[in-house]
Amino acid sequence: MISNQTWILRKRPSGALASGDLELVTSELPELADGMVRVRTVYLSLDPTNRIWMSDAKGYMPPVAIGAGMRGGGVGVVEESRFIGIAPGAVVNTGLATWALYNDLPGEKLAVLPKLPGVPLTAFMGPLGVTGMTAYFGLLDIGQPKAGETVVVSAAAGAVGSMVGQIAKIHGCRVVGIAGSTDKCRWLTDVAGFDAAIDYKSEDVGAALDRHCPAGIDINFENVGGPVMDSVIARLNDFSRMPLCGLISVYNATKPVPGPFNFGNLLMRRTLLKGFIVLDYLDRFPAGMRAMADWLAAGKIKFETDIVHGLEIAPAALDRLFSGKNLGKLLVKVSDPP
Amino acid sequence: MISNQTWILRKRPSGALASGDLELVTSELPELADGMVRVRTVYLSLDPTNRIWMSDAKGYMPPVAIGAGMRGGGVGVVEESRFIGIAPGAVVNTGLATWALYNDLPGEKLAVLPKLPGVPLTAFMGPLGVTGMTAYFGLLDIGQPKAGETVVVSAAAGAVGSMVGQIAKIHGCRVVGIAGSTDKCRWLTDVAGFDAAIDYKSEDVGAALDRHCPAGIDINFENVGGPVMDSVIARLNDFSRMPLCGLISVYNATKPVPGPFNFGNLLMRRTLLKGFIVLDYLDRFPAGMRAMADWLAAGKIKFETDIVHGLEIAPAALDRLFSGKNLGKLLVKVSDPP
Repeated sequence: MISNQTWILRKRPSGALASGDLELVTSELPELADGMVRVRTVYLSLDPTNRIWMSDAKGYMPPVAIGAGMRGGGVGVVEESRFIGIAPGAVVNTGLATWALYNDLPGEKLAVLPKLPGVPLTAFMGPLGVTGMTAYFGLLDIGQPKAGETVVVSAAAGAVGSMVGQIAKIHGCRVVGIAGSTDKCRWLTDVAGFDAAIDYKSEDVGAALDRHCPAGIDINFENVGGPVMDSVIARLNDFSRMPLCGLISVYNATKPVPGPFNFGNLLMRRTLLKGFIVLDYLDRFPAGMRAMADWLAAGKIKFETDIVHGLEIAPAALDRLFSGKNLGKLLVKVSDPP
Repeated sequence: MISNQTWILRKRPSGALASGDLELVTSELPELADGMVRVRTVYLSLDPTNRIWMSDAKGYMPPVAIGAGMRGGGVGVVEESRFIGIAPGAVVNTGLATWALYNDLPGEKLAVLPKLPGVPLTAFMGPLGVTGMTAYFGLLDIGQPKAGETVVVSAAAGAVGSMVGQIAKIHGCRVVGIAGSTDKCRWLTDVAGFDAAIDYKSEDVGAALDRHCPAGIDINFENVGGPVMDSVIARLNDFSRMPLCGLISVYNATKPVPGPFNFGNLLMRRTLLKGFIVLDYLDRFPAGMRAMADWLAAGKIKFETDIVHGLEIAPAALDRLFSGKNLGKLLVKVSDPP
């Protein structure tokens, strides 16, 4: 028998995730069922949405049930297969699996990852993964960027934000990122090619936006919410667009959080705001991945990973997203790649 | 010489409009300039946007200058013309003029109103006017109603809301209006053909929405803002739409007003929210007016007017919009129709 490890949701967190909300449970794997594929997790992706799934507030999917394995995905290697067409040794995207060393998954739902020259495996959880697709479709489909426009993105050094800014640059926009440290801001301007970056922890965001967005803001790609969002909304141009991708500043909230105090400016500026979930674009992923792969190959997209080691660290590592510690895609390396 | 009367903005109101904010000034009309048309106001339209124009908060147009005539429009009769193509006696839509007995207006900007059988002059400030076009384009262009969907509209017995609901009914939707009295609610269901109406002053809005919108809410046509908007946002369906037309509950605010406390539901439900101003649709007014005129002729659109008498009452009458006293289009009858 093979021993598995799975993080089980024991209770719904109140505020930040606390010790005891999740429990790491060891179990013996059953015999693999017909049509299923046994995947050993190599990298587990940690994302703000994990926190949403722990809550029973009405989200975009049902919450993880108490007592169930914590929902999550990543890439892994096939250890055993009872599905024709996927062989042991294949590297796959697990889709929506659990925070576990092994997941037995229906073969027809798995995507075998291609080997692309010069593209590391981690890219399939970054630019070529869900976060890359989030940036790609949110910016292009909702934001509709035009050359010369000004794009502001919050959580700009994160997995999504860093892609949004670079895709906007490729489309000829002026790009201003908002992030939470001088190191991140330096990475944004010096590596990722943003026109400017604002450290919201040490700068007056409104004054910095005035300085860096002299022609106002045409697109606000919103990942965070809260007072920083208010500062951006106040500077939107007429007919601006606001892809609403995330509100990480409120996911840990334990009491009602007011919406933007200048909500009325969305009316006055005739802003289009659109909430979206990347899964809404699932049928268009192939086109998005092809575009991102081309830009990666051309050196037009830089990406960073923030890798922590060991499945046992996953719950604690999730907090890096909420405390602003990560630069780039946060991953847990669970086992060795093939 | 002809004597004119004009409401002059003397100071910016703080909160509700107060005595002394506007002053009614008598003046002698100068000789009519070349290319201009002298229009005697018959009906002056009072609209929530008048209050926006008095404020120097950044709106969608520059505010009325202190010392200038209060901006407003309506319909009037041409008393004198120095513009070829518009003759005395013609009935015109004044466009953006002032709260005055007479306005001298550039002839090329005036629209002469057609005589339509069975259509009273007041309809040109209701279903066939700016408020009708606001309802038409906001609902159809942004809301994209489909037969069988549920539409909620706030300020439902107002000039815009009452049209929104009826246009939605014509498109096969279930329509629930929110208004501020039992009389208004009765008018909505018994005359305007709404499926249900909620009196927000005497009912628990959330419970009533649950009762009247068993399949959730697909379109929220927002005119009001505040806690009622929160109750509606909480019940939006996936891929819902929210034309953001007005936020009358905050126009008189003297301190910052929080946005919706469930702003995050716009993300989770992937709602499309779009602020709009009817002037953005000016080039499509002819098509909108044709459609509305057809529906009016077919008896599919009912409309009410709330007419007060005398230019001197205009500032006081504006408060009827904010205190919820009006049912239908609020007009000041300034002088007799031809």
